[in-house]
Amino acid sequence: MSDVNAQAIASQPLDGEPAARVLVAGATGFAGALAARLVWRHPRLQLVAVTSRSEAGQRHDEIYPRHRVPLELTELDLQAADEIDAAIVAYPHGASAPVVAELRGLGAQVVDLSADFRLRDLPEYERWYGPHGEPDLLEGAVYGLTELNRNAVHTAELIANPGCYPTSALLALAPLAEAGLVDGVVIDAKSGVSGAGRGGGEAMHFSNVGENFKPYKVTGHRHTPEIVQELHGMGGRGPVTFVPHLLPLDQGLLSSCYVTLARAADEAELRSLYEERYAGEPFIELTDTPPSVLDVRETNVCRIHVTVDGDGGRALVFAAIDNLWKGAAGQALQNLNLMLGLDETEGLL
Amino acid sequence: MSDVNAQAIASQPLDGEPAARVLVAGATGFAGALAARLVWRHPRLQLVAVTSRSEAGQRHDEIYPRHRVPLELTELDLQAADEIDAAIVAYPHGASAPVVAELRGLGAQVVDLSADFRLRDLPEYERWYGPHGEPDLLEGAVYGLTELNRNAVHTAELIANPGCYPTSALLALAPLAEAGLVDGVVIDAKSGVSGAGRGGGEAMHFSNVGENFKPYKVTGHRHTPEIVQELHGMGGRGPVTFVPHLLPLDQGLLSSCYVTLARAADEAELRSLYEERYAGEPFIELTDTPPSVLDVRETNVCRIHVTVDGDGGRALVFAAIDNLWKGAAGQALQNLNLMLGLDETEGLL
Amino acid sequence: MSDVNAQAIASQPLDGEPAARVLVAGATGFAGALAARLVWRHPRLQLVAVTSRSEAGQRHDEIYPRHRVPLELTELDLQAADEIDAAIVAYPHGASAPVVAELRGLGAQVVDLSADFRLRDLPEYERWYGPHGEPDLLEGAVYGLTELNRNAVHTAELIANPGCYPTSALLALAPLAEAGLVDGVVIDAKSGVSGAGRGGGEAMHFSNVGENFKPYKVTGHRHTPEIVQELHGMGGRGPVTFVPHLLPLDQGLLSSCYVTLARAADEAELRSLYEERYAGEPFIELTDTPPSVLDVRETNVCRIHVTVDGDGGRALVFAAIDNLWKGAAGQALQNLNLMLGLDETEGLL
Amino acid sequence: MSDVNAQAIASQPLDGEPAARVLVAGATGFAGALAARLVWRHPRLQLVAVTSRSEAGQRHDEIYPRHRVPLELTELDLQAADEIDAAIVAYPHGASAPVVAELRGLGAQVVDLSADFRLRDLPEYERWYGPHGEPDLLEGAVYGLTELNRNAVHTAELIANPGCYPTSALLALAPLAEAGLVDGVVIDAKSGVSGAGRGGGEAMHFSNVGENFKPYKVTGHRHTPEIVQELHGMGGRGPVTFVPHLLPLDQGLLSSCYVTLARAADEAELRSLYEERYAGEPFIELTDTPPSVLDVRETNVCRIHVTVDGDGGRALVFAAIDNLWKGAAGQALQNLNLMLGLDETEGLL
Repeated sequence: MSDVNAQAIASQPLDGEPAARVLVAGATGFAGALAARLVWRHPRLQLVAVTSRSEAGQRHDEIYPRHRVPLELTELDLQAADEIDAAIVAYPHGASAPVVAELRGLGAQVVDLSADFRLRDLPEYERWYGPHGEPDLLEGAVYGLTELNRNAVHTAELIANPGCYPTSALLALAPLAEAGLVDGVVIDAKSGVSGAGRGGGEAMHFSNVGENFKPYKVTGHRHTPEIVQELHGMGGRGPVTFVPHLLPLDQGLLSSCYVTLARAADEAELRSLYEERYAGEPFIELTDTPPSVLDVRETNVCRIHVTVDGDGGRALVFAAIDNLWKGAAGQALQNLNLMLGLDETEGLL
Repeated sequence: MSDVNAQAIASQPLDGEPAARVLVAGATGFAGALAARLVWRHPRLQLVAVTSRSEAGQRHDEIYPRHRVPLELTELDLQAADEIDAAIVAYPHGASAPVVAELRGLGAQVVDLSADFRLRDLPEYERWYGPHGEPDLLEGAVYGLTELNRNAVHTAELIANPGCYPTSALLALAPLAEAGLVDGVVIDAKSGVSGAGRGGGEAMHFSNVGENFKPYKVTGHRHTPEIVQELHGMGGRGPVTFVPHLLPLDQGLLSSCYVTLARAADEAELRSLYEERYAGEPFIELTDTPPSVLDVRETNVCRIHVTVDGDGGRALVFAAIDNLWKGAAGQALQNLNLMLGLDETEGLL
Repeated sequence: MSDVNAQAIASQPLDGEPAARVLVAGATGFAGALAARLVWRHPRLQLVAVTSRSEAGQRHDEIYPRHRVPLELTELDLQAADEIDAAIVAYPHGASAPVVAELRGLGAQVVDLSADFRLRDLPEYERWYGPHGEPDLLEGAVYGLTELNRNAVHTAELIANPGCYPTSALLALAPLAEAGLVDGVVIDAKSGVSGAGRGGGEAMHFSNVGENFKPYKVTGHRHTPEIVQELHGMGGRGPVTFVPHLLPLDQGLLSSCYVTLARAADEAELRSLYEERYAGEPFIELTDTPPSVLDVRETNVCRIHVTVDGDGGRALVFAAIDNLWKGAAGQALQNLNLMLGLDETEGLL
Repeated sequence: MSDVNAQAIASQPLDGEPAARVLVAGATGFAGALAARLVWRHPRLQLVAVTSRSEAGQRHDEIYPRHRVPLELTELDLQAADEIDAAIVAYPHGASAPVVAELRGLGAQVVDLSADFRLRDLPEYERWYGPHGEPDLLEGAVYGLTELNRNAVHTAELIANPGCYPTSALLALAPLAEAGLVDGVVIDAKSGVSGAGRGGGEAMHFSNVGENFKPYKVTGHRHTPEIVQELHGMGGRGPVTFVPHLLPLDQGLLSSCYVTLARAADEAELRSLYEERYAGEPFIELTDTPPSVLDVRETNVCRIHVTVDGDGGRALVFAAIDNLWKGAAGQALQNLNLMLGLDETEGLL
């Protein structure tokens, strides 16, 4: 793109001195690219570099014109990294841990979008993802599902940003789990194509996805142990079945959760539970009717609807998010805001 | 359309004498229109009339060019109906019963696409659909889920053609239910837009459906009692939760069924069960991997995949159909073929 | 929607005293609804009312959750309208003129999204749209294609906001027309479904639009006289053929313009022409490769690519916009900003 | 797929002795795969082998379940090829010519889907596609746009099956060109994604194509010389501008043709011209209104609408096809039927 008006947008729209200088490492995957845009447009954060292993030298807005980040992609250079205060790392699982370790070594606060620091149980991690390069960092990492872990996020130096499916499922289930009401759950989840990332290959070809719909990895998706770990940590019990499906749309994720209740309950009770639990949350919207993914698209919002089925023995909870926002880069910014002492919503409304 | 080549396609492609003269009543809704096409192209059936209450006078292929049925739509004229041997009725629920009664009175074999004869329990019908105009016909009606009811279909004079959701869910669950293994089930079902019919109004506007996805009628869809009736009839037990969702695609329906098993089972056992139950079925395809709706589009096929989760206490069964074919007009033709003593697959391959 | 967190978003995010109190009349059509959101989120404008003729009493965010405007819709009450400084009117053609007249009578500055004040030639207006209710206002109205008419917009009291097709076509053609190079043009334009408005009826049913594409009104679209008027006003000559097509997507519009050049030219010359003409324009992006509608979605940007074909006798110009933003509500805000002496980009980046 | 009912569909549905034994070489690209299905389901042709260079050993219906061709893919073995009477070759440009030569050497009649034998001018071919491996075969090849070249197709031994864009554009323009009325044309063409083939890579990722639309190769698409060669051969004159665009749909192609007429004409005259030219054509439908791609999907039909603009100096012609059917595999079968002395429509209705 030869943009004659590049000068018009080439300087970052900052309000005064930046609160932090931020690096986005791995800024050409879908989530990393959005993170770069969110930092670029953030009124208090300075985007000091966007890096890419394979596309260094190109401008970010050549690859993602719609994000309008007019910076050249560079290789990650940790020598120069002492100029940064914080980093969002959007590397693939496994490749992320060593980079995170180096950035932490330089004193940067880090939000990691990979799975590398999500599972506290090392053998469980290695079962799903292979060898872990930096197990020593596991203990200090905070699982960054903001609404459920806000205090820990506040003081964290390393955030394991949750997966997209766990984000929606756990926000849907937390009030029930914390109240001791979950005695087993089926999570039937559906995600748009961007959740599979930029490198989906032939499986993500328009001709294979458009006008199509299907379940995948029905008994072995990597997000299962993450959901189980957190759900049990909140007090949930019983078997967890998690089945993802692929939707013919780009951004949007909905989890339909079918909860075996520990005791019968009616809709009014459950609604009260959710209203109390999420009172004042800027990014949670409780709705009277089932949520739509279009209503949260390009936002950091999670919309949740809870009801009961039949005789009150089963709760139905539906939670919709944008998988790239609340399910990845948006939540990363929300966490970064908190870590830096900024208003959690800054740059996200 | 002024089709200069109309003569080239205006005569029906019949192989010799027709086996039956068939009327399609209500041929301008999505399912009725497809039924008209299937009868028109059927080598052994003569399409004698296509009727419409509001669009009589127009040609069918003006409204549905892609179906290429070059007949003028007429008002339903039962005086002339003694020239027909069979009818497919695609009227709305409630409006269908009186028409079916009249056609039966004239001796025609009838496949009814509405819900009017699906529920054997009259109060249950009236709870969901309002007053029933022809309750006396209920007893003689056969629920036309062909694979599960073939013998009765063979000798039936009146078929209640199943709903699209029940078709997929019941085909998914039948082998387990018949084996006494179903002790409760969650059916998370997803349908393309055509399932809502031609008159969906603003809710089906492209701007509201495209790139969107949502659950609807999560605790009160009319297909629930139909599923429960048939599932219990087959030996299924326990609570049934059925939740439909709307997919951003036109034709295609997938039911994800989460079955609480009466006893633990492994995948091999369940697969054998399905292979035996559906051996020789021309329209059932059992697959090693989860089915896609695109793989059954514009076919009368139901693709099914069964597996178990965790410790074998829960079975996962996925069934994909084209909601307008196996879920409506295709199954209607399959039933009609059987009623007329023809090969069940004729006109459907 | 019962949004427990409504208080969190219920007050408008204003920076200090508002520069103007703004009414959006007709805020439940697609363009009016977006205008309401843009005013609501604008840092300097106060949204004082959103009106609807048929949906008064409902909350705007019940009908359009994604716009998150937590105001109740009211009937338009001109008695109370002395509290407003400016209005955006998004009524249908014909219905708009009388409302605009009343608002002007009360001293409000008005941006009108309808066609009622676009055509300066009254008989031409009436040929395409029927009787005009307020012909006296025609003379004072300014055609608000901002980049081509900025000075007049600055001092205008009544803006006729351009149609979506004319916006893209005229931005594509202006540099050539002003240079006297246009000797006839074919404009092959393609728009997403939202361009047809919320009330598209059956023609906009997902089943009719998805996976479909077609030309419409190929020799008589109402935007033709608007394009001709402005193109000739800029110095364009020769026959104008304008053919719109309907794309299977929601927001996005691309005009492919095939210009018979008054004299041969090469690509470098034409590019220079465009770079000069649009230097410094905040919402025009000139590109080296053909533009995509996705690259301008949810923005007020117009991306333009110009080249020549064959021996240089024909220029090819492609312009992409979001039909609801630059093609309607976004441009309305851009104009309103200018009329109020604000930075043109405020609330639009 | 472990299809327990494989036996039910494993034998080809032939009517008596086959008219020819047919090989499909390169049966795993989009067009080749459809050709395999069409031959498999053809009542008079025996599908003797489906070949693939990279996927030999897999079953065709594992890769393309929806085509339901239950044959194992093999490597092309020309030793065994004496058992075949005819072949459809769906290799990439350049790779096709040597295979075609060998098959012709064995006496097989060949329909080649590549561009290798479409351009009669060798330097022109090599300019667009690189070196030609079998230039000696060029002279005997017949350009297989069936409706325009039926007699030659009848007696051909080698068919160069037309490109998808040329098929629609030439069917749209032929009546005008043959009447000497074409004095220049702009062809603004739009194709679904499947036209780019299975190997489109990242450019065809759903996230890049869905909700998107753009022109591509605006001054240098390889189909331009093919269109020019044939258009001039029919008597067309003047400059030809051809610009393709990518639609967010799978199958479907529409060419909008803007013809500078050699003399003014009115719509009635042009319609008569088209009705005469295409009288009796089984796959051409002339329509009163602009055609939709959905109306020809999964058919071999081309729908055409012609009108005039302004003072009659410009004709507008719109032609819609399914790019994989009439634009590739469907037309290949149509040609093969003719070469073999069968009814042209056999296996295509």
